[in-house]
Amino acid sequence: MTDAPTSRTRAELPRGFIDRDASDIEAAEAMIAKVREVYRLYGFQPIETPFVEFTEGLGKFLPDQDRPNEGVFSFQDDDERWLSLRYDLTAPLARYVADHFERLPKPFRSMHAGWVFRNEKPGPGRYRQFMQLDADTVGSSSPAADAEICMMAADCLEALGIKRGDYVIKVNNRKILDGLMESLAVEGDIDSGRRTVVLRAIDKLDRLGPSGVFQLLTGGRKDESGAFTPGAELTNAQADNVMRFLGFSADPVDGYKADALLAQTRSNADRIDWLRNKVKLGPTGAAGLSELRTIAELSGAAGYDENRILIDRSVVRGLEYYTGPVFEAELTFEVKDEAGRPVRFGSVGGGGRYDGLIARFRAEPVPATGFSIGVSRLLAALRAIKSPILQQSRTGGPVVVAVLDRDRLAEYQKLVKTLRDNGVAAEMYLGEGGLNAQLKYADRRMSRCAVIQGSNERDAPGGRQVVVRDLALGAEIAKMNKDRADYLELRRRAQMTVPETELVPRVREVLARSGG
Amino acid sequence: MTDAPTSRTRAELPRGFIDRDASDIEAAEAMIAKVREVYRLYGFQPIETPFVEFTEGLGKFLPDQDRPNEGVFSFQDDDERWLSLRYDLTAPLARYVADHFERLPKPFRSMHAGWVFRNEKPGPGRYRQFMQLDADTVGSSSPAADAEICMMAADCLEALGIKRGDYVIKVNNRKILDGLMESLAVEGDIDSGRRTVVLRAIDKLDRLGPSGVFQLLTGGRKDESGAFTPGAELTNAQADNVMRFLGFSADPVDGYKADALLAQTRSNADRIDWLRNKVKLGPTGAAGLSELRTIAELSGAAGYDENRILIDRSVVRGLEYYTGPVFEAELTFEVKDEAGRPVRFGSVGGGGRYDGLIARFRAEPVPATGFSIGVSRLLAALRAIKSPILQQSRTGGPVVVAVLDRDRLAEYQKLVKTLRDNGVAAEMYLGEGGLNAQLKYADRRMSRCAVIQGSNERDAPGGRQVVVRDLALGAEIAKMNKDRADYLELRRRAQMTVPETELVPRVREVLARSGG
Repeated sequence: MTDAPTSRTRAELPRGFIDRDASDIEAAEAMIAKVREVYRLYGFQPIETPFVEFTEGLGKFLPDQDRPNEGVFSFQDDDERWLSLRYDLTAPLARYVADHFERLPKPFRSMHAGWVFRNEKPGPGRYRQFMQLDADTVGSSSPAADAEICMMAADCLEALGIKRGDYVIKVNNRKILDGLMESLAVEGDIDSGRRTVVLRAIDKLDRLGPSGVFQLLTGGRKDESGAFTPGAELTNAQADNVMRFLGFSADPVDGYKADALLAQTRSNADRIDWLRNKVKLGPTGAAGLSELRTIAELSGAAGYDENRILIDRSVVRGLEYYTGPVFEAELTFEVKDEAGRPVRFGSVGGGGRYDGLIARFRAEPVPATGFSIGVSRLLAALRAIKSPILQQSRTGGPVVVAVLDRDRLAEYQKLVKTLRDNGVAAEMYLGEGGLNAQLKYADRRMSRCAVIQGSNERDAPGGRQVVVRDLALGAEIAKMNKDRADYLELRRRAQMTVPETELVPRVREVLARSGG
Repeated sequence: MTDAPTSRTRAELPRGFIDRDASDIEAAEAMIAKVREVYRLYGFQPIETPFVEFTEGLGKFLPDQDRPNEGVFSFQDDDERWLSLRYDLTAPLARYVADHFERLPKPFRSMHAGWVFRNEKPGPGRYRQFMQLDADTVGSSSPAADAEICMMAADCLEALGIKRGDYVIKVNNRKILDGLMESLAVEGDIDSGRRTVVLRAIDKLDRLGPSGVFQLLTGGRKDESGAFTPGAELTNAQADNVMRFLGFSADPVDGYKADALLAQTRSNADRIDWLRNKVKLGPTGAAGLSELRTIAELSGAAGYDENRILIDRSVVRGLEYYTGPVFEAELTFEVKDEAGRPVRFGSVGGGGRYDGLIARFRAEPVPATGFSIGVSRLLAALRAIKSPILQQSRTGGPVVVAVLDRDRLAEYQKLVKTLRDNGVAAEMYLGEGGLNAQLKYADRRMSRCAVIQGSNERDAPGGRQVVVRDLALGAEIAKMNKDRADYLELRRRAQMTVPETELVPRVREVLARSGG
């Protein structure tokens, strides 16, 4: 089995995949348990789907990919059909609902936690396997379902120890941008090519400013190098409408300037009114606005105002299957970036309505809406704020029973068993080292207590004894001034020789000192 | 987004993959939590590795496969390197240990739970994705480590509600069979071809009986059809030794008969002595026997006798990386097979020592031993015995707040929020149906309580009221004789109209009736 050194395999993981150790696992579990508690409070019930699905069942809804196989790990089954590792939990949920439709309660509220895979270029904090934690309501087209998902997202963040004011759930509606396009088409067909030019122009606001965007919306733009980018050839009136959507009003003197009214708009109702009054959005946009209004009203009535659930027309979600309201959970507190500059923590989850996804499998339409938390990003945030959720999950290592006489393993084993039988995590040292190595091992395990029995203790005249050693206190004493008045007393407490029959209570006593 | 009906995708899973619903998930979680509790008591600490590894890192240790890609799902990365989904947790653990060697405490005790994948022909109860629950001790060559793993396996089964006597942990040693081969080679080299013939002959004992096996070990065997299978060409003395290993002694009159002494052998010590005295096993076999003796002694001293941990020379584990002791956890109680015949439940886990696996990655040898539980098989067993572990995980559905006036969603939402704020799982009905459909929905969710508010309750002269309905009691009353003395009293309790301010205590009262 042992390969010759020349053929030795490198122990490494493919790029974008990582191992997790005990503290990562325990922190993630504590976080997931808390989120699931909130999901459950909202009536969502767990489902689980496998990691592998038919490629065609998953569909192609990922944002644009540079790589040839479009972001998905795929392989062929022995009957030639293509299989893929799921890239999110929504596409498998749609397949699940269609597959089990008859026996599911409708509406169906599911929570779905699991690993997903992206065949993408990995980067810092960007993995090819990551965990999502989803909640979805299937079979309801009511904006009340969307509102509830937003409130639940807010509740989750607060349950995890993120303070009110440190997060916001932003809500937009895909129908707004669709409606904007629809309104432009009223004055003449906008084909998909021109539509793309408009969307690209909107995307360049940060870089080109309002007048650059206006040029791209109309006749085109020449940059500093003299290169010319053709425009979308909108009329001035059409372009003005898009500019108003972006928050700029045409000014006869200054060209475009930021809309003064918008700058003063705070409440969700005002933000919606501003869009309705200022921008032509067509019937689709009006429907989208009405859904947003319902979401804002319902969440407002339940006590979630715009400081928690905010209507924000700038929210875009990358996945292509969204058809209505879209959500983004953002953390607004600042952390330092790699260069030490303060930045907002940013998005830790999102979702939206995807009324067309289940219809891929079934004749009738099945509306659905959902929300997905990115576990590792949210966990990083909880670490940044030192959330109490994570503190609770810290535990010390097991009690280590040292082995001094290797021909008496059975006796040490019995000491270990006595501890375990009493619910105390314990182990016998199984390595080759002497007592010092064993205590060093206990240290690395973050053990708080060691049990030692040599021949002196075993053959003690009054009956078998054991040494119970408080490793935490021992470490403190080692650093201590020996002239201290309480030195001897502390040393006595740090290592006591007791009858073997008192093993369990004395070990418990030591464990209790450091809190459990 | 919605495809035309002709191009509709079928909602289905690839063969060998399944969905799991709430009750499966909760049962598995309850079981896993219990097993991890025991693993933790033994000092094992959690690790997690990704699902994807380099194909060459995993190695090829699966039992013989009929399929071309040898049991593993594999695909190429964009740099042409081959990646695979892990087929067990042991090969990734070996990679993990080699990868993180310097920073790990040694010995290293890990627990590792997760899904693994086999690209095999699926069958009843045989999936291509399944969960394993492993514990491994790395860096100890002591049989005490193996003994501890066996005791822990026994503890796990008992913690899950499997009674003593209903299971046995069988222990063998790869070195016994290796030693048997070694002893044969003393009288002349046994090449791998003849070795295979010997192993195949041993495997056919059940089908051919002792004399048929003897023929295959020596000159060969002609079957009823006249077809001839060549033998391993062992001498009679060599073949006798193999036959003794199988439990048959040469009898001058009857040919081979079952070893009388073996039939009376009960204790582990006697079983080991029998092997040592009766069968030539060479130095390797002797070393294997000595390890088994230590395992038997240590577990015996800790109170695990042969009724729990049994030395059994018939145990074979399929994976090729084992080098020493091998373990099999078997459930001995009977269940009915598909044809209704009683059969033993059989294996729910196993493991062994794999001292060569980490050396694939590193210069120095790193001994290791471990145990793996097959989650779905063990879960099936717990269901068969109605384990109390699974009973605890049953919970009812959320309180359903019915929606009678769709223009008052915000008010219903507030009732829901009040319940949730008080820790009661609740939801507002989000579908389109009337009150009957809503109560039917609550029924399907296994809800125990519904809250109803129509205009009568809302406009009640003494202030807003709600109807709190006990769905379990309501269902009982519906089947009840209306002449019963307590009928009206029960009906009153099954549905009470109360002030809205009493919503939470009254709902709690109803939930408490059915235990939670």
